[in-house]
Amino acid sequence: MSTIRDEALKLHQEMQGKLAVHSKVPVHDAHDLSLAYSPGVAEPCRDIYDDQEKIYDYTMKGNLVAVVSDGTAVLGLGNIGPHAAMPVMEGKAVLFKEFAGVDAFPICLDTVDVDKIVDTVKLMAPTFGGINLEDIAAPNCFLIEERLKQELDIPVFHDDQHGTAIVTLAGMINALKVVGKRMDEIRVVTNGAGAAGIAIIKLLLSLGVKDVIMCDSKGAIYEGRPFGMNPIKEQIAKATNREKRQGELEEVITGADVFIGVSVAGAVTPAMVRSMNKDAIIFAMANPTPEIMPEEAMRAGAKVIGTGRSDYPNQVNNVLAFPGIFRGALDVRAKAITEEMKIAAAYAIAGLIQEHELRPDYVIPSPFDKRVAAVVAREVARVAMETGQARIHIDPQEVYAKTLSLSATTVR
Amino acid sequence: MSTIRDEALKLHQEMQGKLAVHSKVPVHDAHDLSLAYSPGVAEPCRDIYDDQEKIYDYTMKGNLVAVVSDGTAVLGLGNIGPHAAMPVMEGKAVLFKEFAGVDAFPICLDTVDVDKIVDTVKLMAPTFGGINLEDIAAPNCFLIEERLKQELDIPVFHDDQHGTAIVTLAGMINALKVVGKRMDEIRVVTNGAGAAGIAIIKLLLSLGVKDVIMCDSKGAIYEGRPFGMNPIKEQIAKATNREKRQGELEEVITGADVFIGVSVAGAVTPAMVRSMNKDAIIFAMANPTPEIMPEEAMRAGAKVIGTGRSDYPNQVNNVLAFPGIFRGALDVRAKAITEEMKIAAAYAIAGLIQEHELRPDYVIPSPFDKRVAAVVAREVARVAMETGQARIHIDPQEVYAKTLSLSATTVR
Repeated sequence: MSTIRDEALKLHQEMQGKLAVHSKVPVHDAHDLSLAYSPGVAEPCRDIYDDQEKIYDYTMKGNLVAVVSDGTAVLGLGNIGPHAAMPVMEGKAVLFKEFAGVDAFPICLDTVDVDKIVDTVKLMAPTFGGINLEDIAAPNCFLIEERLKQELDIPVFHDDQHGTAIVTLAGMINALKVVGKRMDEIRVVTNGAGAAGIAIIKLLLSLGVKDVIMCDSKGAIYEGRPFGMNPIKEQIAKATNREKRQGELEEVITGADVFIGVSVAGAVTPAMVRSMNKDAIIFAMANPTPEIMPEEAMRAGAKVIGTGRSDYPNQVNNVLAFPGIFRGALDVRAKAITEEMKIAAAYAIAGLIQEHELRPDYVIPSPFDKRVAAVVAREVARVAMETGQARIHIDPQEVYAKTLSLSATTVR
Repeated sequence: MSTIRDEALKLHQEMQGKLAVHSKVPVHDAHDLSLAYSPGVAEPCRDIYDDQEKIYDYTMKGNLVAVVSDGTAVLGLGNIGPHAAMPVMEGKAVLFKEFAGVDAFPICLDTVDVDKIVDTVKLMAPTFGGINLEDIAAPNCFLIEERLKQELDIPVFHDDQHGTAIVTLAGMINALKVVGKRMDEIRVVTNGAGAAGIAIIKLLLSLGVKDVIMCDSKGAIYEGRPFGMNPIKEQIAKATNREKRQGELEEVITGADVFIGVSVAGAVTPAMVRSMNKDAIIFAMANPTPEIMPEEAMRAGAKVIGTGRSDYPNQVNNVLAFPGIFRGALDVRAKAITEEMKIAAAYAIAGLIQEHELRPDYVIPSPFDKRVAAVVAREVARVAMETGQARIHIDPQEVYAKTLSLSATTVR
């Protein structure tokens, strides 16, 4: 760990950060200057003034995403503030660029006030083609995303919620094939009511899962629970746990087919895994130590296990989702990233692994599989066009080919 | 002009804007990912959390300037709004990068409300090492700059004011040498009370000019003028025109040694030039057509003439100032750009032309003189360190050498 620490600090210090702004045009003489700046630059200005959509033709907006954070829920570090959050937001921008050629730019905001964050993002929206919210604590993240989605006409996406949910459910789609169970017949129990937990529940329901129970630190959430509720949990309670089962995770996990944890290390014991249905599927994504370690879960009878870790199979890594999602959304100048587009992304990720390739330890593709961003971008663009979210129409296969060419990853 | 129009539109469209965000670190495998992103990225985050100043060591902040506009006074186009302003702000960022290696990023704000602009810039300040205000109309530009300077601990600089003032006065410094007059004995008359006009007056006074009269469209501004005043003009009236001369520009220009126009085409006639003192100096910066054309002014007896145009000698081009000013300020992590730093920049630009090189048609160096940004950066850094504005101390000569190596311009 001390090596990683030293190496990481050295890398960040030598480079003075990880991002640079580059000019795509030369300015070597007066003629160059007259095109890139005055007087020539007045021409695209005039055209955009006459037709605002032309901003996509003449500026960087169409390939540009703001990575916006208030620094309140950064990695496992918690509320470290906007300054200390900068390295993560720069890192996120690096991943956008390297995995899908998206220009992304960190904006760390010196406030935790929902109204101020919403206003600030709205005011600077002319510059950007999309907004990626990052590492903003619940419940503010829900309020901020919801309001921005309503008030802006560019995609707004809180990656900690939806990125995690999309990749988890991609893994679950494939895991169900491995164990031969159907989406509409399984029981899913989740643990953790933070940003990712809530988004996972919503996407599970969208995917057609009927029997879902969400637990928080106080046990199963059910309609009318007299303690530890909030507006979002009330909403979840209405849509899940129809039998109103009560009790600790330990009790309600009995008989479950799938467990999804976005909670804390050690929340799941071997006994709990043994109480699950045959061929149990477990996504244990607490970081850095999962709810249960894969070896333990395996010994207790689980069939498919995914974690957030790169040193185990089936890593739930958001980088499988967000670069391709924004690539596809930007390429069709989408107005939003909708539930349908997220589902398309999950199936695209899952679909990369052919039936004959599927194994318990290979239900999620590698983050370095070059095809991932390309298929995600293609499917997101296709669904955006089919559902009226796209400003322009292009061949989805073009989106695929372009993304493949823009990705700097090399594996596969 | 149609060629420039076609070429400029083609350039902007082919490139989809002029800027890109680049990653300075590779992400080819899991090890790369573990350093640039999780878990390694947590290390610089922790260090910045413990000591906020370390944000300059580990992130792009220390080389990053926001180019902020509300689109209310863009080039000669006027109030075209934040979307249509984007090509200009991207162009400005290109110049920052190409002339001095500064990473600059356009932020176009969808509001003209002073409070909202101030709040927005303050909230996103953690990301940036400096703020360049651009193309914001008077009087809002004064209010916004003043408040941001008071409330932020990074440099805030409204280029339309100070950039123009610095380059104009650099030219005046050299022009006075050409005609053999002293700063404290000349009479200067200016025309135009917009952003640049006000900044020029302030810098003239800082440089030790005693006899200054500012005119607006209603003639000379004097203390107690009963018409067409505002708080800023009142302030100017108190500090200038001690004899309280009244009348049109036409009247008060009589006997002046220097005329500085940031007003409108044709504001100065040959007769007015003839009424000036011997060896008159004229900076006629109305765009694209100057207050008087250089040939006309010359025929009427003017000795030194500068304009905003690249097709005449002595072009007053802001690119001579802002890249080097921010380069120097960023290199010492300056807290502000002060009056002293601006004066240092003006003398640095002027000083590039040796006494024996000075001619009436060569009092301002070429925008493509590679040394300009380097000497400006060096002097700004030096004065910042001498006046307690610098967070760190380095050898000014290092600043010079670094800037020279970062400049992409090639002439000289």
